[in-house]
Amino acid sequence: MAKELTSKEENYSQWYNDLVVKADLAENSAVRGCMVIKPYGYAIWEKMQAELDRMFKETGHENAYFPLFIPKSFFSKEADHVEGFAKECAVVTHYRLKNDPDGNGVVVDPDAKLEEELIVRPTSETIIWNTYKNWIQSYRDLPLLINQWANVVRWEMRTRMFLRTSEFLWQEGHTAHATRQEAMEETERMINVYADFAENYMAVPVIKGAKSANERFAGALETYTIEALMQDGKALQSGTSHFLGQNFAKAFDVQFTNKEGKLDHVWATSWGVSTRLVGALIMAHSDNNGLVLPPRLAPYEVVIVPIYKKAEQLAEVSAKVKEIMARLRKRGITVRYDDRDSQRPGWKFAEYEMKGVPVRLAIGPRDLENGTVEVARRDTLEKSVQSLENIDQYVEDLLTEIQNNIYQKAWNFRKENTVKVDTYDEFKEVLNTKGGFILAHWDGTPETETRIKEETKATIRCIPFEGEEEEGKCIVTGKPSKRRVLFALAY
Amino acid sequence: MAKELTSKEENYSQWYNDLVVKADLAENSAVRGCMVIKPYGYAIWEKMQAELDRMFKETGHENAYFPLFIPKSFFSKEADHVEGFAKECAVVTHYRLKNDPDGNGVVVDPDAKLEEELIVRPTSETIIWNTYKNWIQSYRDLPLLINQWANVVRWEMRTRMFLRTSEFLWQEGHTAHATRQEAMEETERMINVYADFAENYMAVPVIKGAKSANERFAGALETYTIEALMQDGKALQSGTSHFLGQNFAKAFDVQFTNKEGKLDHVWATSWGVSTRLVGALIMAHSDNNGLVLPPRLAPYEVVIVPIYKKAEQLAEVSAKVKEIMARLRKRGITVRYDDRDSQRPGWKFAEYEMKGVPVRLAIGPRDLENGTVEVARRDTLEKSVQSLENIDQYVEDLLTEIQNNIYQKAWNFRKENTVKVDTYDEFKEVLNTKGGFILAHWDGTPETETRIKEETKATIRCIPFEGEEEEGKCIVTGKPSKRRVLFALAY
Repeated sequence: MAKELTSKEENYSQWYNDLVVKADLAENSAVRGCMVIKPYGYAIWEKMQAELDRMFKETGHENAYFPLFIPKSFFSKEADHVEGFAKECAVVTHYRLKNDPDGNGVVVDPDAKLEEELIVRPTSETIIWNTYKNWIQSYRDLPLLINQWANVVRWEMRTRMFLRTSEFLWQEGHTAHATRQEAMEETERMINVYADFAENYMAVPVIKGAKSANERFAGALETYTIEALMQDGKALQSGTSHFLGQNFAKAFDVQFTNKEGKLDHVWATSWGVSTRLVGALIMAHSDNNGLVLPPRLAPYEVVIVPIYKKAEQLAEVSAKVKEIMARLRKRGITVRYDDRDSQRPGWKFAEYEMKGVPVRLAIGPRDLENGTVEVARRDTLEKSVQSLENIDQYVEDLLTEIQNNIYQKAWNFRKENTVKVDTYDEFKEVLNTKGGFILAHWDGTPETETRIKEETKATIRCIPFEGEEEEGKCIVTGKPSKRRVLFALAY
Repeated sequence: MAKELTSKEENYSQWYNDLVVKADLAENSAVRGCMVIKPYGYAIWEKMQAELDRMFKETGHENAYFPLFIPKSFFSKEADHVEGFAKECAVVTHYRLKNDPDGNGVVVDPDAKLEEELIVRPTSETIIWNTYKNWIQSYRDLPLLINQWANVVRWEMRTRMFLRTSEFLWQEGHTAHATRQEAMEETERMINVYADFAENYMAVPVIKGAKSANERFAGALETYTIEALMQDGKALQSGTSHFLGQNFAKAFDVQFTNKEGKLDHVWATSWGVSTRLVGALIMAHSDNNGLVLPPRLAPYEVVIVPIYKKAEQLAEVSAKVKEIMARLRKRGITVRYDDRDSQRPGWKFAEYEMKGVPVRLAIGPRDLENGTVEVARRDTLEKSVQSLENIDQYVEDLLTEIQNNIYQKAWNFRKENTVKVDTYDEFKEVLNTKGGFILAHWDGTPETETRIKEETKATIRCIPFEGEEEEGKCIVTGKPSKRRVLFALAY
């Protein structure tokens, strides 16, 4: 076959890059750190958007749109936020170009300098809370449950397609509440929505938990996260939900009259997932033949390839395929027929394996005689011959089985690659050999966390919600600890 | 009622601004020229997006995403394009801020100056054709039919919400073809898609035609447009489709091997509509009571308001409403129940009139006894009492009638405000009194067109596709003309 991947055992990072390009998902652009998302990659993102958007709306949220640009001064209003976000960013300083007096195209017009520089949003808390000030006067205006689908820019020095790019697409929820408790409940609700999406659509098992103080969002009092394990033993933070307390309300002076008639600052949350999820999806399931997509997020779940030698055979096969497609679509299954005569079946088989299409049907004149079709499933690469009679039911069941199998495989992988360690030596040993998730006791101090990060590059991914209480001692300092936290090397 | 609009007869421009704000569609932001699209306004845009996206996909297009930033040098590659687009734009010159040494927040870090400035895309032809160079080698790679949903920035000095803002949301289609004819067919196909959308979803009749050379897109050989007439007698360009010839392929060196094995430059089109359509929708139908929305683009088609005095009455009414809602939803009708006890029915009636909800149902204890419901339609403000028995069928039919009525009303208005004139005096007279569309003979020269624009502010909106051939004389120069063209004052 023309398209071969570097094997992931040989070079995981190269395997990933090869796969992104060869499965036609994305490519690097002429602009440093920015990627072009190609139609097949964008179709996966659209599927993700559609499901998430439905989930957001079902939990009472509405979409809105806020400006791309943020006045520079806004970033100085929340002290932690400026440290976290205002540094590596794209700065608009001028609003006009003019013809180069030397005749070389266009140059920046020095007369068109902005009075105050504009920052291309790296996240929108500041501009949104500046807006909320006018929207919220009374408890009757609360809760305010808003989401935005947008592009954001963070100037990254080392970029990787989908995982870390200077511009990326995401959604950012920004909610306002009358009480601390309501805001905390919202923070939890949304991390649960993300976990539901990751597990039931992406087929990626995740561990929910709270970030340590070092790893919190800049300006948050609590950051909840879902952490997934990739096939190279590294963790990928896949979604975060932040309890912002009253920090942004105070920074932007957003007060409301509560039910008792008293003025109070509003409580806030924000939460987001991005095109990074496409990277997580690729890395969690794919193999050396290409992408493996869970049916629920595949741009199309089934591809049909006709097998024929003469043109009149194609006509007969196509007539039968048309009938099969109608039956599949009736069940809500997305299906594509590739009857291009410019490529041979073998080439097409390899192409759809690379693209991770969950189910491939191949059908030729002999199948027509026998009333059969060849069914190949992408996740196990198994082939079988099935009767055409119940093929729609068969495929529907198979898609469910594939969705479950992909999840189960990722779950098994995570189970095999999650260990409890009780000494720092053991900790380093695991990191140096197989990686994976490590559950270990920690004394709860930022100093110890920083030391571990500096010495091993591992970070605390989260303090899991579901870990049981257990008396223990910090693997580094020996100080007492009440529960294990989750460590890993991470993307 | 709390919310009153300036009447459109008194001050059309103020009426529009009042309406945008009071119907909760949008508001100006802290960033000059950029607006915040509020949830209700964004919901209209989402409806538009959903229908257009479906239409694009049904005509074979796929979505993709290209970078927000374009290297400055790209704009110099196509000579006309640079004149049209590279001037008033947002220029990114730096990629980092740092703490102000004087302690006043953050300042631009002079050490983080970009080698080449980046332009925030005003339109994406350049970055896209630079990308297509790598995607197209052979006729087998064509046609390439791609659309992008994105934000773009054009630094506007005078802005009006939805109609002209520095940042706006849009879609831009960019297609590549093997032959001139295929590209021309695509250009026509997409202006027809836009006209279909405007007429059948927005309920706005449009005139399709070609732009004169003066009004063409920068870099296009032909620009097709749909032109709508607003209630103040001004035209609004509502969508354009451009035949770009081989200009961008030559500028970015995109060649392919054709079926005969010879190298040729690729033929291009681009086409777009934007959030401006929301402005067109508002201005085409609304009245002094507020927005009038066509059912097919209303965020919800029906609102139900309960009428009650005591809490137990509300419970009874709500039980019935729940049943009505289920019946309406079964027919695919979107419906919202406003049972807030913080507002009185009269306030709610005015609110939903302002927001243009097509049908309002009001139901109270007496209706329960009689098996009736009060139905109010927004377009005519008529009220009637209907039996609950067939209310779902009645509402479904009524929504169709409202959609048709709104269209017919706009069509009648346009008919009454379209005149043929044969002298320049008459032309000026019409412009100075009622405005509207003017069909007049023109000698076909840019000089005459410019003179008319300078003297009257009217522009040629288009050379209509459907105008009949007719011998005549240019109203200004008296030179011969073969067909009337469409003039108007325009947004």
